[in-house]
Amino acid sequence: MNPDRKTVIDRLCSQPEGFAPIVNQTSGRLPSVQRLGEIVKLIREVMFPDFFDDKAPGAQILRHITAVRLDTIYSELAAQIRRACRLMRASDIDEDEIAGRFIDALPSLREILLTDVDAMFVNDPAACDRAEVIFCYPAFTGMLHYRIAHALLEMGVPLLPRIITEMAHSKTGIDIHPGAVIGPYFSIDHGTGVVIGETCIIGHHVSIYQGVTLGAKNFVLDDNGQPLNIPRHPILEDHVTVYSNATILGRVTIGSHAIIGGNLWVTHDVPAYGRVLQRPPVNHRFSDGAGI
Amino acid sequence: MNPDRKTVIDRLCSQPEGFAPIVNQTSGRLPSVQRLGEIVKLIREVMFPDFFDDKAPGAQILRHITAVRLDTIYSELAAQIRRACRLMRASDIDEDEIAGRFIDALPSLREILLTDVDAMFVNDPAACDRAEVIFCYPAFTGMLHYRIAHALLEMGVPLLPRIITEMAHSKTGIDIHPGAVIGPYFSIDHGTGVVIGETCIIGHHVSIYQGVTLGAKNFVLDDNGQPLNIPRHPILEDHVTVYSNATILGRVTIGSHAIIGGNLWVTHDVPAYGRVLQRPPVNHRFSDGAGI
Amino acid sequence: MNPDRKTVIDRLCSQPEGFAPIVNQTSGRLPSVQRLGEIVKLIREVMFPDFFDDKAPGAQILRHITAVRLDTIYSELAAQIRRACRLMRASDIDEDEIAGRFIDALPSLREILLTDVDAMFVNDPAACDRAEVIFCYPAFTGMLHYRIAHALLEMGVPLLPRIITEMAHSKTGIDIHPGAVIGPYFSIDHGTGVVIGETCIIGHHVSIYQGVTLGAKNFVLDDNGQPLNIPRHPILEDHVTVYSNATILGRVTIGSHAIIGGNLWVTHDVPAYGRVLQRPPVNHRFSDGAGI
Amino acid sequence: MNPDRKTVIDRLCSQPEGFAPIVNQTSGRLPSVQRLGEIVKLIREVMFPDFFDDKAPGAQILRHITAVRLDTIYSELAAQIRRACRLMRASDIDEDEIAGRFIDALPSLREILLTDVDAMFVNDPAACDRAEVIFCYPAFTGMLHYRIAHALLEMGVPLLPRIITEMAHSKTGIDIHPGAVIGPYFSIDHGTGVVIGETCIIGHHVSIYQGVTLGAKNFVLDDNGQPLNIPRHPILEDHVTVYSNATILGRVTIGSHAIIGGNLWVTHDVPAYGRVLQRPPVNHRFSDGAGI
Amino acid sequence: MNPDRKTVIDRLCSQPEGFAPIVNQTSGRLPSVQRLGEIVKLIREVMFPDFFDDKAPGAQILRHITAVRLDTIYSELAAQIRRACRLMRASDIDEDEIAGRFIDALPSLREILLTDVDAMFVNDPAACDRAEVIFCYPAFTGMLHYRIAHALLEMGVPLLPRIITEMAHSKTGIDIHPGAVIGPYFSIDHGTGVVIGETCIIGHHVSIYQGVTLGAKNFVLDDNGQPLNIPRHPILEDHVTVYSNATILGRVTIGSHAIIGGNLWVTHDVPAYGRVLQRPPVNHRFSDGAGI
Amino acid sequence: MNPDRKTVIDRLCSQPEGFAPIVNQTSGRLPSVQRLGEIVKLIREVMFPDFFDDKAPGAQILRHITAVRLDTIYSELAAQIRRACRLMRASDIDEDEIAGRFIDALPSLREILLTDVDAMFVNDPAACDRAEVIFCYPAFTGMLHYRIAHALLEMGVPLLPRIITEMAHSKTGIDIHPGAVIGPYFSIDHGTGVVIGETCIIGHHVSIYQGVTLGAKNFVLDDNGQPLNIPRHPILEDHVTVYSNATILGRVTIGSHAIIGGNLWVTHDVPAYGRVLQRPPVNHRFSDGAGI
Repeated sequence: MNPDRKTVIDRLCSQPEGFAPIVNQTSGRLPSVQRLGEIVKLIREVMFPDFFDDKAPGAQILRHITAVRLDTIYSELAAQIRRACRLMRASDIDEDEIAGRFIDALPSLREILLTDVDAMFVNDPAACDRAEVIFCYPAFTGMLHYRIAHALLEMGVPLLPRIITEMAHSKTGIDIHPGAVIGPYFSIDHGTGVVIGETCIIGHHVSIYQGVTLGAKNFVLDDNGQPLNIPRHPILEDHVTVYSNATILGRVTIGSHAIIGGNLWVTHDVPAYGRVLQRPPVNHRFSDGAGI
Repeated sequence: MNPDRKTVIDRLCSQPEGFAPIVNQTSGRLPSVQRLGEIVKLIREVMFPDFFDDKAPGAQILRHITAVRLDTIYSELAAQIRRACRLMRASDIDEDEIAGRFIDALPSLREILLTDVDAMFVNDPAACDRAEVIFCYPAFTGMLHYRIAHALLEMGVPLLPRIITEMAHSKTGIDIHPGAVIGPYFSIDHGTGVVIGETCIIGHHVSIYQGVTLGAKNFVLDDNGQPLNIPRHPILEDHVTVYSNATILGRVTIGSHAIIGGNLWVTHDVPAYGRVLQRPPVNHRFSDGAGI
Repeated sequence: MNPDRKTVIDRLCSQPEGFAPIVNQTSGRLPSVQRLGEIVKLIREVMFPDFFDDKAPGAQILRHITAVRLDTIYSELAAQIRRACRLMRASDIDEDEIAGRFIDALPSLREILLTDVDAMFVNDPAACDRAEVIFCYPAFTGMLHYRIAHALLEMGVPLLPRIITEMAHSKTGIDIHPGAVIGPYFSIDHGTGVVIGETCIIGHHVSIYQGVTLGAKNFVLDDNGQPLNIPRHPILEDHVTVYSNATILGRVTIGSHAIIGGNLWVTHDVPAYGRVLQRPPVNHRFSDGAGI
Repeated sequence: MNPDRKTVIDRLCSQPEGFAPIVNQTSGRLPSVQRLGEIVKLIREVMFPDFFDDKAPGAQILRHITAVRLDTIYSELAAQIRRACRLMRASDIDEDEIAGRFIDALPSLREILLTDVDAMFVNDPAACDRAEVIFCYPAFTGMLHYRIAHALLEMGVPLLPRIITEMAHSKTGIDIHPGAVIGPYFSIDHGTGVVIGETCIIGHHVSIYQGVTLGAKNFVLDDNGQPLNIPRHPILEDHVTVYSNATILGRVTIGSHAIIGGNLWVTHDVPAYGRVLQRPPVNHRFSDGAGI
Repeated sequence: MNPDRKTVIDRLCSQPEGFAPIVNQTSGRLPSVQRLGEIVKLIREVMFPDFFDDKAPGAQILRHITAVRLDTIYSELAAQIRRACRLMRASDIDEDEIAGRFIDALPSLREILLTDVDAMFVNDPAACDRAEVIFCYPAFTGMLHYRIAHALLEMGVPLLPRIITEMAHSKTGIDIHPGAVIGPYFSIDHGTGVVIGETCIIGHHVSIYQGVTLGAKNFVLDDNGQPLNIPRHPILEDHVTVYSNATILGRVTIGSHAIIGGNLWVTHDVPAYGRVLQRPPVNHRFSDGAGI
Repeated sequence: MNPDRKTVIDRLCSQPEGFAPIVNQTSGRLPSVQRLGEIVKLIREVMFPDFFDDKAPGAQILRHITAVRLDTIYSELAAQIRRACRLMRASDIDEDEIAGRFIDALPSLREILLTDVDAMFVNDPAACDRAEVIFCYPAFTGMLHYRIAHALLEMGVPLLPRIITEMAHSKTGIDIHPGAVIGPYFSIDHGTGVVIGETCIIGHHVSIYQGVTLGAKNFVLDDNGQPLNIPRHPILEDHVTVYSNATILGRVTIGSHAIIGGNLWVTHDVPAYGRVLQRPPVNHRFSDGAGI
């Protein structure tokens, strides 16, 4: 080993100064993003077996396959919860009990997810069949991950819910914080660039388009200058529609049946049945170069 | 099995009430998203063999490799078409005939795709070589998937075209409906958040940027309150340029050589050679907190 | 082989007319996107071993594992640089020397990356721990790829830096050109749709949100009508904040501590401590249909 | 393609003259040795789940795992039987019915196999535990394959039984023809070189050693000079022991409790309780070279 | 599930009556034959890195690779020892201590193995190079497994040594019990069918050929009718040669430099420098059929 | 690293004293046994495509598949020949030319191999079809490897032929030295334990059984005490039959149509049409213990 390479190794293998532990964690194995991905895949397969399984098993054998998959979900999830709790110092959590409750919640999770499928199908003239939504709508993936992650968060699981929604974010461009509360029959069209913040509260039959941000306007800092984690994202009441690329910021309330036009920047309440729109553009000609 | 786990299995393995079939499809195997992904990969390899193949086979053996790959594309595609038709009750389609026609169309598909590569190279000062476009421009991936999917849709294949463009959407953030009609020399820069709706008609030498939506403004509902699938997306004539995050909605026409500025919300026609721009922002200072 | 299939093969295996070489490259093997992906994965593992490794090796064996990984990074990277140089006709580059320098730079790359992690943690009230940032923040992935790619670009490596940042773009929707110059403590929240152009210069403690474009306004064409690759993207001084979906175009300067509001289209300088905001929307009711 | 390579391909792709079909079978897909290997592996796992499964599933979930495995064995085996029947022109066989009967026979197959395990344990002073026999005695593998293959042969399945015993032959050097009839409590020690011919009949509690051949002495030819497939291998009555490398040839009967010494060539009956031994060797010195 | 399939599952999932535990072991996971195979492969790689490694790492990096491999061998071996001890109720064994001692013994194991390579090379006129012996002589594989297994057995490890030698038996037809004691410079030519029993003692420079059995003649039974595990296999003194297919049985001593001819059955001592040969065959003609 | 582990690494990474190079070969990469195995598998697939390929491609596409496989065989084989020549200091060999000649020889190799299949079918009353021989007769595997290896040896390739026949030895227990010369229509039944030495010469229509050794009797040593590689194995003329476990040693000639009985030790010539048989055994009873 030449001296430099040795120095490189020394530096890479040592804890960076002035920073919380990055290497040589003493807390044992960290959660595995890969394993969590496999768990979500199994959950998808038990919920929609014919869609994400190349074989179409008969009804009878499906029960056994489902039982085996549930058992794997149970034990793998418990293991990951244990790792996450150790890392986040959440020592009072019983991972087996939570994994068991999560298994019990799966049928209800599918039920609410099917309301989302229904809403996405109804809202899109281009959709030919609910199966199409399940097969290829990114918002289906986004909501599958969100609803799993939200359930886990409500059961007190640290860290993992965020990893799970981020997987969907990576695949779909839809970034829903697991802490958001979202009612049934939620639909997102296209979805890329959607951001739904941690303290959002969304009613039923709400429909949003690509690029919509439901974000925070500003942060209240604590005495250490660290932003406080308080309610700071919008409330959307039932039957609200938000068009593409609109940005709604802060703890504002968009009343039921309101419609928010695209490319807007909204930082105030909108009453029920309200409609807001961007001002019309100016027209002019450019004198310089090939572009604008 | 404890009683609860049995209930979970019962519920997961039964058809959810009041919903079109989700489990225990009687229509046999459903299309496989994974297999379709492999088919698209093979198509990419026969079109651009040196780019997506770690080996660089000599010209002579390339012919044989291409023949073998075409044969696999043919049979795998026919199988997936068959599954899709069964699911969507499109029984009058001859999958072998379509798969054969698709094979025959591959050289023309590559030709038009190369016009897109050319346009992307010419439009981007940061591009050093056409090879760079093929290697790493997301819009190349987006157009590859779109042009394959559009060809299949035109041949009458249900469902699969949508799955194929959605794969590109997931990888690139570019969401082009396979029903859109797009001329040659189409370029997209960056691409994340681009949405091109089902009934768009786009001329040649059109260029758009990230975040552009070519969408529908509102839906005409049928007697059942279901949105009608009628022309409802913009027409962009030749040489139009649309800058980032602009939203153009409804069956409007953007005339040839028009330029649409970024972050706009356009719901009306723009004449040929027209230019539209957002109104200038207000400047002011905030009094509260750390943010805006 | 039926005659048509033979024609298809002939066309696919021949060089398309009037186009730079697409098939049958005489320049030998092209760079492999897959191998580059594996190299980046190894780099991530040597930098953050406990996070992306399912096992948590003890401190002593970690040194050996790191040595072996560095050796693989070194030789694989040199091989890819060689392929890229041959393709781009950059014959004066010593790939072994560069790969060696890159290895030497890894500890410093981690250091600056940790400042980004720090900034992302501090700026997000929803973050519970720096580990959460490393595990699941897309901007962590985006900056990891960017900082690797930028280092390689500075060492003169062609093509590969762009492929590397595009990998992150595909996973995260964050598109940073490797040519941009970005100071420490850079944070991006959510990130989908972010575009940072080739000639951007960004100070330290800059923070941007999803959908922000730092782009070029128009191109200066050379005598062949080809856009010139000159400084054409914004300069953001220290402590600037840019909110979601804002578009800043051209070689403008955003002064230190300035705040740019969301959904804006900015093509002019903003002074230090300046704040710009979109004009308030109009409110009105629609008379037609279900939409806006 | 140079002319010679073309000739090579022509010759390899054409049916060799004067020979039964070797290439371009018109009978569709042939049986797959690899798939049969996987079927046998699954059978081993349902019979001895804790031994050949890295996990040790609890009793309850084991039932479901077993159900799923049986279902796979059933359908895969039926598919292979169908292929074998087509090749061997055995068109009157109902592969589903046979696969079902085979599943039903598995518990009994395990029972008789356990008598073999018992005999091997009792006969070997070096064995510490029955588990050791199951883990690592080649004769366990040999008998597992034989008992599966024999059951299939009795149900009328062509070709596959022979492929299945040959797999064990390859792994263990024990070559038992599936047509042989072997009683319970059969043990083989070491096993390499054991050959048990097609028409052997072997009682219970028979024990043989490595290198033992129970073969045919000579063939009766039919009118075409082809050997007739008639009873031509030995009968070993209960409690017979045959020591290593003995060769017993022809339709002779070795009476119950007889012992055949090693390295013998036996072509005649041996009475019950008989013992036969090789003549003692001569002793002498060699005059030439380093060897004998 | 039809009633019969349920019965099949019931029977397969229940413990067979009158038999030591076969299913539903309460002793936790059993040893994994597959993992042991991987451990032996790693041992072979640390001992002969250039031979069984497709890359030829430089001397410096080899040290790190070796360190990583040793660490894996250590932890995997300890895990398998733990499982074996639990199954065999050998609770007083410290698996970590043994795995550590085994690591320490590896250089000496390679040294003695190289004497075997040397002997095999010297004894075979067909061998061109010692490398040929390491690459492809089955006796090299046989001795590698035996010497590993013997070392583990001497350290008190139950069950695993037998599994390890049986792997070599399966690959090579050479069956050496790990309990045998074999001196350096041992060579086996061809090897198929060789059996070396548990209590054999073999000096240095002993050479044997294919099909040689060094076995037990008869068993002394204990009061339960179970064979006693006492010294019962031959002693071969230094420089003995045994030709192919000879069988030497019982606790006899073959004196130094003795030569045993092929196809013999030897159950008595042979003095030093003795030579024994089979009696010459009779010649005659057969009157019946096509065979003998 | 504790001091001992460091010592272990030191010793394992250093060249053992007094021994030809074992580690840190300066001759570059050594041949890869794994790659050679893949080459043989490809050869088997081009020769018998329907047997060892799960798909049954149509005649037309088979030509392309064969061309691609031949190309892979050619380049991979040339690479392995190059490595072998470097190791064995056989610098005057043109690996590309040899690999090309080998490809040209494949059709003839298949022809002679089919004569062996024919002989094995005709000689075995238990065989139902030539396909059965190809699917599962170990002697088919043995002869496939031998005929490939012999062809390579005749072309001057060092080392690899021996590795190739040893693969078959491992799978089948049939050990044929690639130097042996074997005529067409050669059959081996069962095969375990067969050894055919380097200088054997075997005519056509020769048939041998399991356990037959055609070996060397003694070695002539050179002045260094090293055995000379001179003709030292038997000659079997046409139509000879050798029964199981017979050992024929030295440069003796077994005349045409001779039959050698089983379990014999033959070290002298046998005339044409001669028949030799073991002396009949003695019968007696044992007085001691349970065994012989």
